[in-house]
Amino acid sequence: MAFPSSVKIVEVGPRDGLQNEKQPVPTAVKIELIRRLAETGLSAIEATAFVSPKWVPQMADNAEVMAQIERRPGLSYPVLVPNEKGLEAALAAGAREVAVFGAASEAFSRKNINCSMAESLDRFRPVAAAAQAAGVSVRGYVSCVLGCPYQGEVVPAAVADMAWALHEMGCYEISLGDTIGIGTPEKTKAMIEAVARRVPLAQIAGHYHDTYGMAVANIYASLQMGVGVFDASVAGLGGCPYAPGAAGNVATEDVVWLMRGLGIETGIDLDSLVAVGAWISAQLGRASNSKAGLALGRRCQK
Amino acid sequence: MAFPSSVKIVEVGPRDGLQNEKQPVPTAVKIELIRRLAETGLSAIEATAFVSPKWVPQMADNAEVMAQIERRPGLSYPVLVPNEKGLEAALAAGAREVAVFGAASEAFSRKNINCSMAESLDRFRPVAAAAQAAGVSVRGYVSCVLGCPYQGEVVPAAVADMAWALHEMGCYEISLGDTIGIGTPEKTKAMIEAVARRVPLAQIAGHYHDTYGMAVANIYASLQMGVGVFDASVAGLGGCPYAPGAAGNVATEDVVWLMRGLGIETGIDLDSLVAVGAWISAQLGRASNSKAGLALGRRCQK
Repeated sequence: MAFPSSVKIVEVGPRDGLQNEKQPVPTAVKIELIRRLAETGLSAIEATAFVSPKWVPQMADNAEVMAQIERRPGLSYPVLVPNEKGLEAALAAGAREVAVFGAASEAFSRKNINCSMAESLDRFRPVAAAAQAAGVSVRGYVSCVLGCPYQGEVVPAAVADMAWALHEMGCYEISLGDTIGIGTPEKTKAMIEAVARRVPLAQIAGHYHDTYGMAVANIYASLQMGVGVFDASVAGLGGCPYAPGAAGNVATEDVVWLMRGLGIETGIDLDSLVAVGAWISAQLGRASNSKAGLALGRRCQK
Repeated sequence: MAFPSSVKIVEVGPRDGLQNEKQPVPTAVKIELIRRLAETGLSAIEATAFVSPKWVPQMADNAEVMAQIERRPGLSYPVLVPNEKGLEAALAAGAREVAVFGAASEAFSRKNINCSMAESLDRFRPVAAAAQAAGVSVRGYVSCVLGCPYQGEVVPAAVADMAWALHEMGCYEISLGDTIGIGTPEKTKAMIEAVARRVPLAQIAGHYHDTYGMAVANIYASLQMGVGVFDASVAGLGGCPYAPGAAGNVATEDVVWLMRGLGIETGIDLDSLVAVGAWISAQLGRASNSKAGLALGRRCQK
C-alpha cells in the first residue's frame, strides 16, 4: 500500500505527557505549552483530563486549563473523560471533543479504570451518547494493544473487539496504544490488520510509546499498513503511571522528522516544534527525550 | 522480500563507541568489555583501530588490547586500519580481520581521512592486497551514506560507486554507515537498492547512528530489502568525532529486541547483553543510551 500523502499528528504532551510528572506543573506553564504547540501548525492538542484528582493530581486544574487556553479555529483540544461525571465537567468547561479510554487487557482494565473490559464499555456508552447529543466529538483509546504489564500477551482479536465496540458507539477515531512500548513492527502490523477488519482504516490512529526504542519503527510499519493518524508527545514527555517501566511517548519531533524524510506532509513546522520541546524541557528542568529535537537544537545553536 | 531467518550483528562499541570518549578509558576496561561481550553470543566484536594516536588518542592502546584479549574460536575481532602502516601494526598485533574506511562524500573524505574519495581507494588497494596475502579478511566501511555534515546531500550512486570499489578490491562485506544518523527509512531503501545493483546483497551491512532517533526504523527498512548484517554498539556508545551533532550508534540491545520481536535469530542472549550495557555505562559514569537496555534493566531489578 502506498503511504498517505499527509498524516495527522495528535499532540498528547499536555495530557499523556504531563500527567506523570511528580512535581505539580503550574497551570500557567500548561497553558503556555498549549499556546506554543498551537503555533507549530498542529491541528489537535490533547489538553487535559477530567479524571479524579485523587488518581491523577497533575490534572486537577483541568477546568482552569480549559477556561484559559486560547481556542484557535481549525484546532481541536480533546480532553479525557472516564465516565458521565467526567463528561459533565468537561462540557461545563467548554470541551468540544472528548476521549474515552479502554484497554485490550482485562488485567490492565481492572488496575487502570477499576472495571472489566465489558463494564468499561457499558460505562462509555452513555458518555458517548451524551457527548454526541451535545454535538461533541468522541475519540476512543484502546491501551495495551501490544502487551500488558500485568497479563503479558494481548492478542490482536482482543484489540479488534475493543476497537470495534468503541467504533460502534460512535467514536470517530480509535487510538491504539502500545502503553508499555513493548511492540515491534510485525506485531504492530498484525494488530492493525486485525483491527482494520472491523474498523475503517481511516479511523485508526497509532499511539506508541518508545520504552524499548521501537516507536518510530512501529509508526513506519503502521504507515505501510495505511494508518494516517499518530499520537505523539513533544520532547517525548510522558508514560503511564499504572504501567511499570513505561517511560515516554514517542517524541513529536522524531515523528515529524520521520514524516519529512518520507515526504509525508504533517502541516507542522519542525523548527518551531523543536523550540517548544526545548522550552518545556527547560521548564521541567531536564533534557528532552527527543533525539531529533536534541540534534536539531544543537544544529540551531551553531 | 521475506525477512532473513537470522542476522549477524557486528558489535562496534569497543571501537566506534569508545573512540569518542573524552576521558581515556583504561585498557583493562576495554579488555573486560570485549570479554563480557564475547560471552553474550556475539560473533564479531570490533576491537580497536590502528590509527594515529594523534587523531584518536583513545585508540593508542590498540596493540595492548589485541595482545590481551582472549580470542575465542568462532569469534572475529576486526580492527580498523587507515593505510599500510596501520595494517602492518595490526598484523604485528595479531589481527585476523581488518577494516578500511572510506566515505561517500568528497567533503567528509577530505576532513576525515585527508584525501579525496579516489585517493582513499588508491590507498586502500595495497592494504587490501597485503591483508589478503597474509590470509586476513578485509571489511569495507562507507560513511555518510545518507548525508554528510559538510556537503549535505549524498546521492545513492556515490554510495554504490564507493561500495563497488571496496567490493572489487576484495572486501568481503561492505558496511554502509549513516554517520550522522540523518537518514529515514525510504531513503535508506533507495540507497540500499542502488548499492545492491553493484554488490551482492549478502555482502551488505547496515551501520546506522541514532542521532535523530531513526536507526531502528532504518534497520527494519533494511531488513525489508533483505539486508542481514547490522553494526551496533552496546549501550548506544559512540558517534563520530569529525561529524558535528553525531551522537551515538544504534544500541545493540535495541537491535536485538527488534530482531527478537520479528522472530529473527541473532544468537545473542539479550539479558547478558543488557548486563554488559549496564556495566560499561557504570564504568563510564553515565546512563545507557539503550532504551531497551534501560527498560529491561528496570524489569530485572524488580
